Amino acid sequence: MGSIQTAVIIGNGNVGSHLGEILPKAGVQVLQISNSKIPISELNKKADIYIIAVKDDAIENIYSDLIKCLQRERVEQPSENKVQLIVHTSGAKNQFMSPSDLRIKTGVLYFLQSFSKGFPLDFSEIPVCIEAQDRETETILFDFVNKLSKKVEIIDSQKRASLHLAAVFANNFGNLMFSLAQDIAKKAGLSAHLLDALISQTASKATEMETAWKAQTGPALREDLKSMEKHKELLKEDSKMRALYECLSEIIKEKKQYNNGKL
Amino acid sequence: MGSIQTAVIIGNGNVGSHLGEILPKAGVQVLQISNSKIPISELNKKADIYIIAVKDDAIENIYSDLIKCLQRERVEQPSENKVQLIVHTSGAKNQFMSPSDLRIKTGVLYFLQSFSKGFPLDFSEIPVCIEAQDRETETILFDFVNKLSKKVEIIDSQKRASLHLAAVFANNFGNLMFSLAQDIAKKAGLSAHLLDALISQTASKATEMETAWKAQTGPALREDLKSMEKHKELLKEDSKMRALYECLSEIIKEKKQYNNGKL
Repeated sequence: MGSIQTAVIIGNGNVGSHLGEILPKAGVQVLQISNSKIPISELNKKADIYIIAVKDDAIENIYSDLIKCLQRERVEQPSENKVQLIVHTSGAKNQFMSPSDLRIKTGVLYFLQSFSKGFPLDFSEIPVCIEAQDRETETILFDFVNKLSKKVEIIDSQKRASLHLAAVFANNFGNLMFSLAQDIAKKAGLSAHLLDALISQTASKATEMETAWKAQTGPALREDLKSMEKHKELLKEDSKMRALYECLSEIIKEKKQYNNGKL
Repeated sequence: MGSIQTAVIIGNGNVGSHLGEILPKAGVQVLQISNSKIPISELNKKADIYIIAVKDDAIENIYSDLIKCLQRERVEQPSENKVQLIVHTSGAKNQFMSPSDLRIKTGVLYFLQSFSKGFPLDFSEIPVCIEAQDRETETILFDFVNKLSKKVEIIDSQKRASLHLAAVFANNFGNLMFSLAQDIAKKAGLSAHLLDALISQTASKATEMETAWKAQTGPALREDLKSMEKHKELLKEDSKMRALYECLSEIIKEKKQYNNGKL
């Protein structure tokens, strides 16, 4: 198998639709972007790569249907001998079992980024973690991804699972904190965007300092009990927010003690 | 009282030391930056403004000592008639009670930012919330702060308390999520800075989109139970992190239901 020239993208969610835009710019022809309404049997069967960018729970079924279709195609057209690649884009899901058909290879393309439709991304700065069933496939995937991003990393399924969990904390839970902060400001009759400079600064420090922990400040870190009491008083009508405030403050306190060598 | 020309900063922590650098650039002469070892009675008594930038718990004592010193100075030098200002920089603490001496005025300067020593800041972009005991003092404070920042907001103690709480969620808890994410990556033998692009993007979306909630993605939002199970399995040896994962995922789920009008 040579380099990847053509792709079918399965899934038109956040990841699929972004890939549909970016691949042609990297010189890869997108033969099809499929959604859940199109049966796998009706997909174009000539692509060099099939990128399965769907909910984790749906990947396995699509994969086994796709394998069957591609194999059937080979039986019907025995002259067709080219190697085809099937990859998924999930952070949490293991690499596929190697297919019995030696002309079908598998791998993973995990984009370490949060995709939102309509929000533009500089793909060249997104770390992409790849994994492949063998060295040759790894090289092909690497060359393919290298057209999109400057930051390609070869990472196995186990490490990728940890990285995906880290990404949930950084992005999903980080964003949740920003969202809850905006809710509190709005509830007080203030503009949520008053917090913008603080949010930007929070991310700048976490990335530019040696570790995010070195940027940690606030009442819980300095054990400013009066401020914390006042905050809990403000949250007294929302028991869940209050419990969350206490829980996160406790984690900060413990992390401080641990880092100070007290634990 | 005219405009503020001279300042004494009490406290040489993160806020105090940044102010010590920025005030001269705004044309304000810093007569002194005091630390906890210098008794209040030894402070320069001629400043137009005294900025108390210390731990919340210590503000009240410093304030009452300072008031006494300034009043004594006036008794000793009865010709001195100028108005002097005392402000604190706390988000959580109420405006001071108005002093009995009519030539001493009070207020608050709350910088909606997280200061770390050695990390440079563009002060002009930092929202500064001011409060003062009367309109005249408010105008003087406004003009003073306007030399430092383009974003001056007049906000009363009650709203400031909510804003301070919002800032704890945005900065302290947001940074904690980034820090925990880096810990997870490092524990898996990966570079913590692999997450940098994701962290930057998280903040960009939260500030540039209409609300941070519109940027929310991830397993908890899409109710991808398999990924969540896998994550909890990864955290099985750390019961607190696991409980935190479950708690934050639950909040995301509830917020989604609430926003969908189901609650």
